[in-house]
Amino acid sequence: MTAPSFETIVNLATKRGFVFRASEIYGGLRSAYDYGPLGVALLRNVKEAWWRSMVQLRDDVVGLDSAIIQSPRVWEASGHVGQFNDPLVECVSCHARHRFDRLEDPDRCPTCGLRDSFTDSRDFNLMFKTHMGPVASDSNLVYLRPETAQGIFTNFENVRRVARLKLPFGIAQLGKSFRNEITPGQFVFRTREFEQMEMEFFTHPDHADGWFQYWVEERHQWYLDLGMDAANIRLRSHAEDELAHYAVATYDVEYRFPWGWDELEGIANRTDFDLRQHSEASGKDLRYFDQAAGERLFPYVIEPAAGATRAAFAFLIDAYHTETVRDAPRTVLRLDYRLAPVKVAVLPLSKKPDLVEVTGRVADALRPHWDIEVDVTQAIGRRYRRQDEIGTPYCVTVDFDTLEDEAVTVRDRDTMAQDRVGIGQLRGYLGERLGAG
Amino acid sequence: MTAPSFETIVNLATKRGFVFRASEIYGGLRSAYDYGPLGVALLRNVKEAWWRSMVQLRDDVVGLDSAIIQSPRVWEASGHVGQFNDPLVECVSCHARHRFDRLEDPDRCPTCGLRDSFTDSRDFNLMFKTHMGPVASDSNLVYLRPETAQGIFTNFENVRRVARLKLPFGIAQLGKSFRNEITPGQFVFRTREFEQMEMEFFTHPDHADGWFQYWVEERHQWYLDLGMDAANIRLRSHAEDELAHYAVATYDVEYRFPWGWDELEGIANRTDFDLRQHSEASGKDLRYFDQAAGERLFPYVIEPAAGATRAAFAFLIDAYHTETVRDAPRTVLRLDYRLAPVKVAVLPLSKKPDLVEVTGRVADALRPHWDIEVDVTQAIGRRYRRQDEIGTPYCVTVDFDTLEDEAVTVRDRDTMAQDRVGIGQLRGYLGERLGAG
Repeated sequence: MTAPSFETIVNLATKRGFVFRASEIYGGLRSAYDYGPLGVALLRNVKEAWWRSMVQLRDDVVGLDSAIIQSPRVWEASGHVGQFNDPLVECVSCHARHRFDRLEDPDRCPTCGLRDSFTDSRDFNLMFKTHMGPVASDSNLVYLRPETAQGIFTNFENVRRVARLKLPFGIAQLGKSFRNEITPGQFVFRTREFEQMEMEFFTHPDHADGWFQYWVEERHQWYLDLGMDAANIRLRSHAEDELAHYAVATYDVEYRFPWGWDELEGIANRTDFDLRQHSEASGKDLRYFDQAAGERLFPYVIEPAAGATRAAFAFLIDAYHTETVRDAPRTVLRLDYRLAPVKVAVLPLSKKPDLVEVTGRVADALRPHWDIEVDVTQAIGRRYRRQDEIGTPYCVTVDFDTLEDEAVTVRDRDTMAQDRVGIGQLRGYLGERLGAG
Repeated sequence: MTAPSFETIVNLATKRGFVFRASEIYGGLRSAYDYGPLGVALLRNVKEAWWRSMVQLRDDVVGLDSAIIQSPRVWEASGHVGQFNDPLVECVSCHARHRFDRLEDPDRCPTCGLRDSFTDSRDFNLMFKTHMGPVASDSNLVYLRPETAQGIFTNFENVRRVARLKLPFGIAQLGKSFRNEITPGQFVFRTREFEQMEMEFFTHPDHADGWFQYWVEERHQWYLDLGMDAANIRLRSHAEDELAHYAVATYDVEYRFPWGWDELEGIANRTDFDLRQHSEASGKDLRYFDQAAGERLFPYVIEPAAGATRAAFAFLIDAYHTETVRDAPRTVLRLDYRLAPVKVAVLPLSKKPDLVEVTGRVADALRPHWDIEVDVTQAIGRRYRRQDEIGTPYCVTVDFDTLEDEAVTVRDRDTMAQDRVGIGQLRGYLGERLGAG
């Protein structure tokens, strides 16, 4: 089975309303997207699966939700004000601006084709700036966070204290971040506004290497457990000259996107860089007191940092399959049931009022447990195809026999096998396959 | 029972780590807060309860997640660029800035006490401004959204089409919004960065009044269903001169905060103002085609718009109770179990390794279903008090008898009654009280 092309996936995502261009009625805004009914459900499910695996199921990780706008001193201490830059050049002829280190040919403008037309490269800081309070001045300049991680470091001691945590422990956070990318692109893959899933795991320095390996494997496994094809995902170690200034080791979890391998998540050993920086800059001692050893120390930090939006995009691509069934083409999203936007579609065979009435009753009984869709349009075959295309694991069909036997037909998305199930048994039948709900 | 004072609630919230001041190690940032492990859990539960009630359980509402940064033309059309202003005055003596319409005494500066010291009032626009792309200029000025609602209106036709919706239907959205308030305050009640829960319900104009009444009652009931004391919540109709320019009727759901009645949520009949504005400004026809009547029309919009952060704060205040139990004071958060940050605490009676081992086993078995906390510190009575204070509905105690009878003691937060339950029956016992999980 060949992977879908970039266009195929973008078409499906827009046609089915997973993703819309932001401000589309006004011509859109470059690299900004809104998530429609199916997209927000997929995105919520990805984030929920992450939170469940990283917080709920663990006894050593707690959650946090820090503000997008923090004191500018946070970003001075973290190095973002000084160093979070990309090299920017402008073509003197067509005035297109490019990220210099990403140019295929550093002497030729990719927009107008002119040679030797670039200005000198200058550092462009990627943080969005704004002003807090009624007058815009240097004294109230603030930034939109470019990562959620720093909100965790600045709260390290607060969280440790109130949750009475002992090393090793982690603090996890979901939330929006903003980077003023010079060249965003590839649909929702690289956008200026995006959603992160980050966890900072604090450990004694002596155990940092072991925990680094642990988290690399754990995070790789998370994508596999949610059904990603092992052939489409790989781990790649950063070369020495590729490492960020704060890291001694980094693995990327990469996905085979239509344009090639690209990053889903980075797992970095950030050492004690961040806690040291914030201790120095704030004058607060952020060392951890190890009672057993009787010593104060800066813990090392292992950081698995993933993108929620790009993870959702990768799951969508990976789930996409086409096949031929009885000489007809079928498109099916083989999404893990935990990620599927709609868990169960309830479909009356026809629009006859008595079938529609039973359909409503069946749907109402399932709704407290799962995301349900009712569809009364078109022929049943076309409705199955639509549910396949949005990845709905089960279709429940209410037919004329239902009026006699109080049973429905349940169709499995992947096998297309059909079971006859009593309405009274339906919740249990689905619960075995979809989790309790 | 008397309501807790403002200080009592702020103390509890900060001591237990529901809320921290943002950038606290750097002296904080005015009116910006981070949510600690319990706070993020409470906030997630509030948002989840809203989404469940507004989207999952309904067949006439779908979800959306639109971007925070939209085209500036959205905010021109909506009226925010021109009219989303507060009157700002500055004291010429102490340079404090105030919102003129909120001054108790319009002739005296509340900061320095000087009389007749104010500059003329000027309109201050509450939207945060920033620039998208590598050069700051008027041509790439953008705003942080001051409400999620407009992202719904601009996607009205997109969502209607892909979800094949017929009137009446709603589109719901959760997300951060930003308002550059001149005078934020009252802890997390009024902050410049905050989280909204908004739903726009589109209806034929003839049915708008009925749906308005429906949603006023429905939203009032939502707070009551989640356990809010009916004596602390009320509906207040806006007087004619208080209505926003786009609304013909508005009710506020108000809560009796420690500083008096204040807004939790507004339910407004926005008429067809927004869809008309965006149709005119974008040149796209956003009318709905009513097949039965054969007419194109602008639907009316009923909008229940709630604040997630202030709802969480109100639930926290409302749940706070103190009482005397066997001559000892007890503080207990009587949070509805759906909102409680921790559902079950698992506590070994002592730190003896065999008790701790069983505790771990019991906790691991419950963790896939609920948010669990294990606490092995201090005397059991103090641990019960701590769980009461954070609102944990059930404490499960592993004692020495457990090693013999494979049973544990389950303590109910509110009644303090204790049941002996076999470990094998524990999930079922809790499931009856906490939902399947």
